[in-house]
Amino acid sequence: MRTLLVIGIGTGNPEHMTIQAIRALNTADVVFALDKGRAKADLVDLRREICTRYLTEKPYRFVEAQDPERDRNPADYGATVEAWHAARAAVYEAMIARELDPEGCGAILVWGDPSLYDSTLRIVDRILARGTLDLAVRVIPGITSVQALAAGHRIPLNRIGGPITITTGRQIAGGLPEGADATVVMLDGRPRFDHLDPDLTIYWGAFLGTPDEILVSGRLGDVAAEIGDLREAARTRHGWIMDTYLLRPPEPT
Amino acid sequence: MRTLLVIGIGTGNPEHMTIQAIRALNTADVVFALDKGRAKADLVDLRREICTRYLTEKPYRFVEAQDPERDRNPADYGATVEAWHAARAAVYEAMIARELDPEGCGAILVWGDPSLYDSTLRIVDRILARGTLDLAVRVIPGITSVQALAAGHRIPLNRIGGPITITTGRQIAGGLPEGADATVVMLDGRPRFDHLDPDLTIYWGAFLGTPDEILVSGRLGDVAAEIGDLREAARTRHGWIMDTYLLRPPEPT
Ligand SMILES: C[S@@+](CC[C@H](N)C(=O)[O-])C[C@H]1O[C@@H](n2cnc3c(N)ncnc32)[C@H](O)[C@@H]1O
Ligand SMILES: C[S@@+](CC[C@H](N)C(=O)[O-])C[C@H]1O[C@@H](n2cnc3c(N)ncnc32)[C@H](O)[C@@H]1O
Repeated sequence: MRTLLVIGIGTGNPEHMTIQAIRALNTADVVFALDKGRAKADLVDLRREICTRYLTEKPYRFVEAQDPERDRNPADYGATVEAWHAARAAVYEAMIARELDPEGCGAILVWGDPSLYDSTLRIVDRILARGTLDLAVRVIPGITSVQALAAGHRIPLNRIGGPITITTGRQIAGGLPEGADATVVMLDGRPRFDHLDPDLTIYWGAFLGTPDEILVSGRLGDVAAEIGDLREAARTRHGWIMDTYLLRPPEPT
Repeated sequence: MRTLLVIGIGTGNPEHMTIQAIRALNTADVVFALDKGRAKADLVDLRREICTRYLTEKPYRFVEAQDPERDRNPADYGATVEAWHAARAAVYEAMIARELDPEGCGAILVWGDPSLYDSTLRIVDRILARGTLDLAVRVIPGITSVQALAAGHRIPLNRIGGPITITTGRQIAGGLPEGADATVVMLDGRPRFDHLDPDLTIYWGAFLGTPDEILVSGRLGDVAAEIGDLREAARTRHGWIMDTYLLRPPEPT
């Protein structure tokens, strides 16, 4: 039976790799890189660096996948994502069958942690459901951008005993839900802060974990414009950007 | 100036340690263990093991803190936690002043990640606010029990594009909020499932990341009793238990 390792690699700092991830990686015959989009070259580079640095115990091959195209502004978000996952499952199934011996071990290196806004495990499930490949799957957790954000700002996410919501820019486009406590926003392609309470505290971070890390925090009404400017400048400089932020209601006085 | 490293060590598997955490640890002169409660001996043992295994580049001292007592079933939760944090800040301030040279580096090893339901950073902030110790603080992220749960079950936490809420047993004692999507429950000393929708899917895990890891998943109505039994047996065997679970609404058909 083939083995497939789904390994969280952290969010840009090669030293986010855990000992568990390094050990697992060193059992792989083939490492698959499945990145896509504008950031692709940079992200594939980090994966190569991780392999060069840590996969030192045996020879391995590094295989870049051909990723099917995806509609970035679909009318029906759910259905489009479904179709795209199905297309990726077919592509990756073929790739695994072609590249891995029947007893071989492959590794997919996942940005951050595989459990957080990442489609790899859904695609692996689809491959398993197709029933043509026998795969033993193992998942290795990794540092997420949420933890990198909190570490950068040296803050706890939650208020004492309070809940934390992790959500997307899309979900808060109409504002935060009534009574929202600590809220982490990811996947916000075009952060707008003007529809939010200016008295919220924001902890914002871009390129977290990397040498280009940028951190800004403060009262939203005071720092929103600065964040917008820094974000645009960084996006222009890099050609792409990854950023995340935590919003917290003002402490009751 | 003294340096204080707040290092996330993961949730029981010494191999959850990141390279960044190991490197930081190797700059420490003193490692502080601040555990408390029934699980104390086991948790301190893991920290000692981590130091023995990874802190190999220089001599260091391992110091166990005297933790002030805490009221576990307080009438006023918020005020009691506040008072307890204040007491801990005073104890730890004295300990840091006593154990660390004026240019020394200390490390506090935090279970999981320091951003998630952990009081260390709040206590460090209080020490800084007291203004008698000059401290440069650095936070190193670690694998959380939430990621260990998802990795154990090999699942994404979120549904496609959906939010994730991380909360406590106390917060859901009256049931899940209306329209709750993926909900991770931590710090649930006495999980009761009978007030929740039996059609929810539960992914439960105890002692995640350790050799004693237990995983159960399924329709809540079908597996709640099994989880209760396993939990009681494990708690009796170990003398304590750490468990976490994810609840997800049934997929629309
Ligand atoms: C598709 S999600 C993947 C998240 C990833 N699995 C994780 O564990 O962090 C991508 C989003 O994660 C966030 N993100 C990932 N890496 C980041 C970084 N280094 N700095 C800031 N945000 C980051 C951004 O919000 C981005 O839109
Ligand atoms: C005080 S919180 C600390 C959480 C920790 N900072 C983290 O990042 O996971 C303790 C709670 O975390 C969860 N937890 C921590 N370690 C765990 C483990 N190994 N297995 C299951 N749950 C765990 C339990 O819900 C426990 O009540």
